[in-house]
Formats: sequence, C-alpha cells, structure tokens
Amino acid sequence: MSFAYGDAEASSALARTIDWPLSYARRAGRIRASEIRELLRIVDRPGIISFAGGIPDPELFPVDAFRAAVDGILGNPKQARVALQYSVTEGYEPLRVWIADYMRSRGTPCSSDNILITAGAQQALDLIAKLFAGAGDTILVTAPTYLGALQVFDAYEANYGAIDLSGRADCPYAFETAGERLAAAYIMADCANPTGRCLTKDERFALLTLSERCSLPIIEDAAYEALRFEGDALPSCQSLDILRCGSVERSRVLYCGSFSKTMAPGLRLGWICAASEVIRKLTLAKQGVDLHTGLIGQMAMLDVVERLFDRQRERVRDAYRCKRGAMLAALQEFMPAGVSWTEPEGGMFVWLSLPEAADSVALLPRALDEAKVAFVPGPAFYAAEPKRNTLRLNYSKPSMDEISSGIKRLGRLIREIHTKDGRGQIGVNVQLGHIAGMTSSRG
Amino acid sequence: MSFAYGDAEASSALARTIDWPLSYARRAGRIRASEIRELLRIVDRPGIISFAGGIPDPELFPVDAFRAAVDGILGNPKQARVALQYSVTEGYEPLRVWIADYMRSRGTPCSSDNILITAGAQQALDLIAKLFAGAGDTILVTAPTYLGALQVFDAYEANYGAIDLSGRADCPYAFETAGERLAAAYIMADCANPTGRCLTKDERFALLTLSERCSLPIIEDAAYEALRFEGDALPSCQSLDILRCGSVERSRVLYCGSFSKTMAPGLRLGWICAASEVIRKLTLAKQGVDLHTGLIGQMAMLDVVERLFDRQRERVRDAYRCKRGAMLAALQEFMPAGVSWTEPEGGMFVWLSLPEAADSVALLPRALDEAKVAFVPGPAFYAAEPKRNTLRLNYSKPSMDEISSGIKRLGRLIREIHTKDGRGQIGVNVQLGHIAGMTSSRG
Repeated sequence: MSFAYGDAEASSALARTIDWPLSYARRAGRIRASEIRELLRIVDRPGIISFAGGIPDPELFPVDAFRAAVDGILGNPKQARVALQYSVTEGYEPLRVWIADYMRSRGTPCSSDNILITAGAQQALDLIAKLFAGAGDTILVTAPTYLGALQVFDAYEANYGAIDLSGRADCPYAFETAGERLAAAYIMADCANPTGRCLTKDERFALLTLSERCSLPIIEDAAYEALRFEGDALPSCQSLDILRCGSVERSRVLYCGSFSKTMAPGLRLGWICAASEVIRKLTLAKQGVDLHTGLIGQMAMLDVVERLFDRQRERVRDAYRCKRGAMLAALQEFMPAGVSWTEPEGGMFVWLSLPEAADSVALLPRALDEAKVAFVPGPAFYAAEPKRNTLRLNYSKPSMDEISSGIKRLGRLIREIHTKDGRGQIGVNVQLGHIAGMTSSRG
Repeated sequence: MSFAYGDAEASSALARTIDWPLSYARRAGRIRASEIRELLRIVDRPGIISFAGGIPDPELFPVDAFRAAVDGILGNPKQARVALQYSVTEGYEPLRVWIADYMRSRGTPCSSDNILITAGAQQALDLIAKLFAGAGDTILVTAPTYLGALQVFDAYEANYGAIDLSGRADCPYAFETAGERLAAAYIMADCANPTGRCLTKDERFALLTLSERCSLPIIEDAAYEALRFEGDALPSCQSLDILRCGSVERSRVLYCGSFSKTMAPGLRLGWICAASEVIRKLTLAKQGVDLHTGLIGQMAMLDVVERLFDRQRERVRDAYRCKRGAMLAALQEFMPAGVSWTEPEGGMFVWLSLPEAADSVALLPRALDEAKVAFVPGPAFYAAEPKRNTLRLNYSKPSMDEISSGIKRLGRLIREIHTKDGRGQIGVNVQLGHIAGMTSSRG
C-alpha cells in the first residue's frame, strides 16, 4: 500500500491515545464483568473440581442424533440450500409448530403465532428487556435470582425491586409512588437457578394476582422446567394465568423456554411463548439484533426432538436425580453443623448457606487453593443486599466421584475454618485479591 | 389440573384486555416493521422475479464442505461434547486466530484479542450500538445507507446526521452545538448496500480526518468487502487508519466482517475487529445478549474456510461478476431514457434512479401486479429526506435468465408509465394499499 500522509497528520496521529469510556453510552457503565463467567476461565485448571458452572453433562448430549440430522439435511441439496440461506426472523415454522404442541401439552393452548425462536433463553430475556425495560424502570426479581438475567436488565439500566409473593402486595408498589415505572417481574418458577427451588401453588397465584393488580408483565424463565425429576410438577405461571383469563392472547405472562438443558446448549435454541401481538413486536426487535437464528440448527433440532425428546428428557432427569442424590448425601456426610442447603426436586443446583457471619466471596480463593474446589459465591445472584454467607453448587457437570470427593474437601475446609475461629467466621480474613481477574460484580 | 379460582377473580380476569403498548419502553416506538423484510413475505409467490432480497445465490454454498466438517466434528466424541456445550463469549479461539490472520492479510495487523465472533455482522452492529449509542445521540450515516443498520440504531433511539466526506468537515458538528452527543459514524466503504459503491481514496481519508477531529468512532461495515470482483481494492478504512496511527489498539475504527456473503449466511457468523479494550467490553455486552454464538457452527466454519476460503471467494466473485454484467446489459437494453443506475465493482446490488418526479414506493404494486417483478423502494434506505425516485435491485439471487427477463418486464412497465403521462411521473397515482401488510417504515 502506498498511501502517504502529510507529516503533520502523521505526527499528531501517532501521539493519539483513546479514552474509550468517553465514547461509550451511559448504559456501558452497567455492562460489567460477570463473576460466574470470569470464574469459568479460572477453574479450568487441572486438579480443580468445579461446582461453579451452570453447564449440562456433555455425556448426555444426543450426539449421534444431531449428527444424523445434520447429515440428512445437508445431504439433500434442496434442504441444504434452505438450511444455509437467510431465513425469516420468527424461526423455522415446523419447529415453531412443534414448540406450540409442546406448550399445549404443558397447559398453554397456543399456535405457532405465539412462538418466537431465540438464540437460547438468554436472548429471549434480552429481547423482552429491550421491548419492556426503559432506563430507570423497575424490574421485580427474587433474591437470589439468575445472574444472567441481572446482566440483561443491567444493560438496559433497570432498577430492581423485590417480588412480594405473600399475596398481600398492593399496587402501586413503592417504586411507582417514587415516580419509577414498574416494567416487569422476572421469575424462575421451576427448579430455579441458583436455588433449585420451585414456587408453591400459593406463590404462583400471588404472582398472578400481583400481575393483575399492577398490570404487570411476568417474565417466566422456564429454562429448567423440564428438569424436574421428583415431586409433582405444578402448572407454569403462564398456564395458570390462562386458566384464569382464558387465552394466551389475554395473558401477561411471557414464557421463555430452552433446549439447552434437555438437548444441548451449543445450538443456542430457545423460545418465547406469549400473546401474538407481543411476539410480532419481539420479532421486529430480533430482526435488528441478528436478523434470525441459524436455520440449520433449527432444522436439526426439530429432527432430534421429534425422534427422542421424551426419551432424552427422561435420560437427563435420571442422571441429574442421581447426581443430586450424591451431592445431598455428601453434604449430609461432610458439612459441619451450621451449614444448610436446599433439596431441589429438579434443575442443576444446590444453594448452600454457611453460618451467618461467613463470607463465601472470601472463602473462594481458599477453596480453590486448599480444597481444589470451585463454586459461585452467592452475592453474584443478588440485585441488592447480598447474603454473603451463601453459595451455589452445580451437580450436573461433575461426575459422581467428583461430587463426593469435592464436597468432602469443601466440607473439610469449612469445618476447619469454622472450628479454628469457633464463631462461624468463615474466611473473613482472606483477601479476594488472591485470584487474578476475579471481581465481585455485585456487592 | 385442578386449580380453582374464586368467582370474583375469574370474572374480573375474563374481562381483561391488555393494551400492550402501555407496557412497552419508549424505545419500542422506534422498533418497527422493516419494508425489506415485509417484502420477503410477499414476493415469494410463483411467477414473481425478485430483485428485492439481499440474499446470496444458494447454488454457491459450499454444502459438501459444511457437511463433511460437521460430520467430522460430531463423529469425534471428544470434539462433539465441546461443540454442543456452552462456550466462551468471545468465540472459538482457533476461528478468532484465523480471522486475525485474514485481517492481517487485509492490512490490519492484529491478534485474536482484537476479534469478537458475532451472530453475523448484524449482531456486530447491535453490540456496537449498545455500547456506543445512547438515546438521543447522533449517528452519522450516508444517504442512502443499509436499512438493517438504521433498524439497529432506531432501537437505541438514535438521531441521524449526514457524514460529510468532503474533507472540509469541522468539529463540533451542528449536532454537538445543539447539545446532542455525536456517537459514531456508520459506513460501508466497499460495495455498499444498497448502492454497490465504494468510497474513493479521498473519501476514506476525509472520513478518518473527521474521526480524528471529532474523536469519532467509525463503524466500518465490511459485509460485502470480499465481493469486489472488478477494479483495484482500496485498503479498508481501518487499515488506512492503522497506517496513520500505527496500531489497531490506537484506531477508532470498529470493523465488522461477515462470512454470510462469501460462505453462507445460515450459520450466522460474523466478527468485530477493534482495539482489544473495546473487544473486551463488547464481549461483556454479548454475554448478556446470548451468552455466546453456537460453537458447532464456528468449528464447522473454521474447517471450511481453512480448506477453501480463497477458492470459494473467487467462485462467488466470478458468479456475481457475470450476474452484474447481465443486469447492466439488460438495464442498458430495456430501461427508457431518464433512468440511471450505478455500475458496481462488487457486492450484490445496483441502485436505480428513475426520473426526479417518479415514486418507487408507488411503482412497486404495479411492478408486482403487472410486471411480476419485485424490488426494494429506495426510501427504505434513507434515515431522512428519502429520494423517492430510487430503488434497489439485487442480482446475486436471481438466475441469469431471470435477470434479463425481469429487467425487460420492469423496463417495459417504466417506459409505459413514462410515455403515458409524458412527464416522467411514474406511478404517482397508484395507492400503496394494494399490497397487504406492506408499510413504508421511512418516509
């Protein structure tokens, strides 16, 4: 290349330094590192047993079914040209129809007009927030809640309030009297991340009553719904609302589903089920965001779910039931008194509470160094006022052996600290700075 | 399901009607139907020759290479488990390295730290807008510009200004003196959508001078850059800027690349190449948006581009050079006097100007009904003050035969209208309402 600049241009330019944050929009201040993602970089070291991820067991992926599906699609010239071409934003129509059937089987009568295919449930949350959450609006969340949802809402400069599930909530909420708009409530009603808990029937009713009183859209994140392996499944909040209002077209619940936990996350496929008017608007939002989700993945997913959805779901449930059992048994055996945990009936997580004065953020570097065990400190999952004595343990990814030896090592460390200072002050004298690149994004 | 509601609840709920726009954030008012996308629904009728899409020729997709790549990945159990699992947000490292090598070959010395893999160049634009464009900020664009970029910036409630490429632009621009923040300039420097034009050397320098004077980030959308099939390629704006400032780390240019036009759009793969500090921040934005782009597609794309990128690019260039030639020849033969068009050296589009008083939006229904030909009316591509006598013709998707017979039919219709009223008033007495669902989103 032979483009010459004048001397003045060149010398002024060489001295250029860019202060990028000056160029960013205000919302950039709310786009920050996620503790859980930073962790994923650190824990991938030999010898560490990780309970930190939110990752399915890859041994369960229906690899051969995906391989056969893609081979069949790309082996048919006509299908191949469609699969690799641009496509419509709302998603592959036969897959939308399959999902609508699935939603019907779960108590939500609907058609493909009520379904938008998304790049995982994560994109579903982003699109919904884009449509509903203005800067400074309040979103009601549980405490704790899904870290990735907070990351979405943060980027839209949302404020947070607590969902009142007592059934006694009045409207307007305090936020509205303070001049803030109440945009939505976000909830995982089944096998929640991070606690593994399911809402009770009364809590579901309370949520819907709140929605009705405040004209409040409900974002029901059902990413783990299909992973209930024990106890009686309750209807989704959306299907309960439809029992009351008669139609998905009159429901304020926006249901976010996912194939990531039952089938495989690597195809990035989820969906939103909602009133068709909202789906049309969300489709327009998705157009700007990525035009559409890749068709080849959607076609392959349809082929696979048609063949083996029920069987695959049972397989995953069975495996996670076993692993959950192993983790609860190990916790029972190895955790000292003063430590408690949830006993999930599904999902991928157990939520651990250390004695009140303990600090899980400070515990982590010692867990990594001394016990060679990783977890996610609880504060990452709170929009405000984090309980610092909590932490999240994942049981879907580690093997049965890793679960019992990892919990044994973690239990021993907690017991040791607990016994040493005698006051349940776990890890308070440990500096977080031990771990490079690790920052607490909340609290 | 046996959940009973009290009578009061049930009757009040049954009467519920939801006014959804009341629940939407303010930005929702700017999330509107795209003319081009609505068209894609309409033109898919038998007998219509469509010059409306922005779609590659699917006959050129390297189907067998993708098929072999996916089969190889999913046939290897260890690779399969990685390919279908969650992954890191910044993208598949070996593909990032390949892209960094490619960028180096195009005059941008960089490493994988400067590359973020995105769901097509469209997501690249969305992520950049999310980071840089606050509500009410001004983005400088050309007239006309890429419709999909306007759709992105609209959703962030941007205002628009015109890029001054004369080299005489002062800073602050008028927008800044009016109290508006100048967020970025957006440009397609090579084989632009919709005009097919490339910026001259002087225009590239003028843009970079403007960037320097106003500390203005430049969004260089290079989606069609690899499709130049004629004339000498100029260096990208990014590489010219690096000649001046010495390093991608000191450049204000954010380069957006895509595999959609050379390889296949169905895998939704593009990238951003920029200063590593910006890439890190964009990566955080992408985390919230969709966690990451599916790994199996990235792994397959790497396999395919390693095998045949250069060959495939030549194949696509050759095919589009032929089709461009066929379209220019047909326009020359069949268009009446008073109609002019661009003669692109690459890309997928010819930009047609009808006589001043003509209206392409009004022409479209007659073109569909009488000539059985579709195009995109020019006003869709203007942020403001649309030239209503312009329209976009695509030559990549239709066959050689369709190009000549379609242009012949369109030319005949234009000539007929032109001759009939004798004043070049094309289509002014035609109602847009002819086409169901068709709305002009701009102007």
